[in-house]
Amino acid sequence: MASDAEIEAMRQAIGLAARGLATVLPNPVVGCVLLGPDGTVVGEGWHEHAGGPHAEVMALRAAGERARGTTAVVTLEPCNHTGRTGPCSEALIAAGVTRVVVAVPDPSDEACGGAVRLREAGVDVETGVLTQEAEQGLEPGEGNEVWLTAVRRQRPFVTWKFAATLDGRVAAQDGTSQWITSVEARGDVHRLRAQVDTMLVGVGTVLADDPLLTVRDADGKPLARQPLRVVADTRNRTPQNAKIRGDDAPTWIATGEEVGVVTGSKGSSALDLPSLMHQLYVRDRRHVLLEGGPRLAGAMVEAGLVDRVIAYLAPALLGAGPNALIDAGITTIADVWRLDLVDVRQVGGDVRVLARPRARH
Amino acid sequence: MASDAEIEAMRQAIGLAARGLATVLPNPVVGCVLLGPDGTVVGEGWHEHAGGPHAEVMALRAAGERARGTTAVVTLEPCNHTGRTGPCSEALIAAGVTRVVVAVPDPSDEACGGAVRLREAGVDVETGVLTQEAEQGLEPGEGNEVWLTAVRRQRPFVTWKFAATLDGRVAAQDGTSQWITSVEARGDVHRLRAQVDTMLVGVGTVLADDPLLTVRDADGKPLARQPLRVVADTRNRTPQNAKIRGDDAPTWIATGEEVGVVTGSKGSSALDLPSLMHQLYVRDRRHVLLEGGPRLAGAMVEAGLVDRVIAYLAPALLGAGPNALIDAGITTIADVWRLDLVDVRQVGGDVRVLARPRARH
Ligand SMILES: NC(=O)c1ccc[n+]([C@@H]2O[C@H](COP(=O)([O-])OP(=O)(O)OC[C@H]3O[C@@H](n4cnc5c(N)ncnc54)[C@H](OP(=O)(O)O)[C@@H]3O)[C@@H](O)[C@H]2O)c1
Ligand SMILES: NC(=O)c1ccc[n+]([C@@H]2O[C@H](COP(=O)([O-])OP(=O)(O)OC[C@H]3O[C@@H](n4cnc5c(N)ncnc54)[C@H](OP(=O)(O)O)[C@@H]3O)[C@@H](O)[C@H]2O)c1
Ligand SMILES: [Zn+2]
Ligand SMILES: [Zn+2]
Repeated sequence: MASDAEIEAMRQAIGLAARGLATVLPNPVVGCVLLGPDGTVVGEGWHEHAGGPHAEVMALRAAGERARGTTAVVTLEPCNHTGRTGPCSEALIAAGVTRVVVAVPDPSDEACGGAVRLREAGVDVETGVLTQEAEQGLEPGEGNEVWLTAVRRQRPFVTWKFAATLDGRVAAQDGTSQWITSVEARGDVHRLRAQVDTMLVGVGTVLADDPLLTVRDADGKPLARQPLRVVADTRNRTPQNAKIRGDDAPTWIATGEEVGVVTGSKGSSALDLPSLMHQLYVRDRRHVLLEGGPRLAGAMVEAGLVDRVIAYLAPALLGAGPNALIDAGITTIADVWRLDLVDVRQVGGDVRVLARPRARH
Repeated sequence: MASDAEIEAMRQAIGLAARGLATVLPNPVVGCVLLGPDGTVVGEGWHEHAGGPHAEVMALRAAGERARGTTAVVTLEPCNHTGRTGPCSEALIAAGVTRVVVAVPDPSDEACGGAVRLREAGVDVETGVLTQEAEQGLEPGEGNEVWLTAVRRQRPFVTWKFAATLDGRVAAQDGTSQWITSVEARGDVHRLRAQVDTMLVGVGTVLADDPLLTVRDADGKPLARQPLRVVADTRNRTPQNAKIRGDDAPTWIATGEEVGVVTGSKGSSALDLPSLMHQLYVRDRRHVLLEGGPRLAGAMVEAGLVDRVIAYLAPALLGAGPNALIDAGITTIADVWRLDLVDVRQVGGDVRVLARPRARH
């Protein structure tokens, strides 16, 4: 049984882990707190970016000699493989840590996980402490859910974001769509983009809106680290002079030739989306922000490839124009795709709804 | 200048007024607090139903002899006409009230309002105290806005309510639509219906869903007082055996013959909606709950006849099926109909958005 001090330390470690959210991909967010025998904190650490020190190593460094005899409270099972940084299990053993408290077991391969190695070396290991908080975050969307889901499914986690009017339109009848939502909502989208490693749009959106799809900071300046921009473009229709082809950020025009095609129920052929997702995973992509449009979103929903929905709803009405979601393969109300409401809040003058699919596909 | 005690009393009076919300139509909600010379409350009252005592009279009765020399704090300018109950201005003068503090002037006819009569009799009158709170309510939607708007425009106040998925669909592709939202949201709708005197639907909804459109209490029992059910039905297509024709509640099938028709931009003729609204006003109707469907809602929005929007959004996706709003006469994004967000909250597992048109038509 974890003590109250250990549970408190785990909450702290989950908060530390979240500091890596915008920089850590394709790695997990991890936080670590070292508790001395009297329950005081003697070191803390978090994982900031791939190639950088793991959370455990950072905490051990902070503690120095005082690490001996401590309990390591860590949000993810310590790694046991020699990557760029050496296994954390060995580092903990070498430093004389006597107990390890873990929130979430490593999903990659349980049998050779760090917990087994630690126990072999006589370290007391307890798992399952604040598992859900570590996965979902103390604030909605700020846990390790993205990385865990990606590794479990061997494809990137997919967040579908859309901006619509209260009647669900993403553009007017004539195709115009600029500034449906407020400047605050658009700022929120840029913070979201900063947390992903990939942005995906359909070629329809490229042809209609010619988006740039880069991430800018609060002052409108492009960030140094830009996510990969991917266009789902079966027949290579992305114009040569499309903004998305510019060198502001890396781009992949994913065509049928490269990814493969499938023939849909209506006889038309389109990109094989599970194959696209798998190729992105192989390229070390862990979090795709699906930015539309409605047809690609429909196909992603139908394929069971949406893990989170973020809707920005403007208090405005159009009464005509394309819908936020088109052709998701649902024809009758009994098959409606139900989500759980995770968070609802006002962002600027708009409503932001965060929801999670109820039944996993 | 109103004193702190008077402002506090006005807040209290606004709260008292709201007690009449579900019963008072076609009259305004009004609250009254009588303050003795030392600032203590010596009487309070509110208007409960048409034909019953006005708020001022109820407060004067409660105060009895102690009314002499008091200040009457009242949410609406005291009436000055002899209706079923005699003018409140005279009652206040006769009781020896020496000062009257008012939130909102009577919009019906300012020149012969109670304030003028009171001043003639030497009573000190101050208006404009917490005007906005009295109109909009301490809680969203709980002020005198409905009655004030109706009198100012000489037509009923219109609340448009719809229930949709996150992508703005009110039914699935095959027309099925039952239980899009949660049982809690449906309970909320019944509380809303209990506050109106009229419910309006298009004949399309009657043909598609055959709704009963009655108001039930928390146990599912029909209320004694049922709003008038109105069907916008240009060509009298409501089936003879439609549930809405039953004797559970009064019904008006508003046909083109009775109300008049106009020819729209697309050459089709439909009910003259301003004329329909005027006829309802003449029949003493002050609050219409527009329950859909999307085409009638579109026509009402286009005609500038929607004063409040309440959207119940289920965290669910359909990707096909009718939209919440169809054909509101908006074709380009520059003409989008913007609203102000008044309130966003979770009701059961759904999101409820309350919004008010930005520019009045
Ligand atoms: N407000 C917002 O959040 C937002 C965001 C984005 C877009 N939009 C609006 O959405 C509209 C564009 O909508 P859209 O539906 O035409 O664009 P889209 O969803 O971006 O692109 C659809 C196209 O993607 C391609 N595609 C490739 N693989 C696919 C697959 N497996 N399934 C489905 N499609 C696949 C198809 O073209 P090929 O067969 O040629 O590959 C398809 O026509 C514009 O009006 C834009 O303004 C709004
Ligand atoms: N989820 C919800 O909140 C909700 C609520 C209601 C309905 N619905 C759904 O909405 C669908 C029905 O939609 P709908 O658009 O066919 O029905 P509707 O809006 O209820 O009715 C439209 C009809 O109203 C009549 N009308 C009379 N005067 C009009 C005017 N001035 N302008 C426009 N229409 C006028 C027209 O028929 P005439 O010309 O013959 O008079 C028109 O066809 C159903 O699927 C139903 O389930 C959903
Ligand atoms: Zn490690
Ligand atoms: Zn009166």
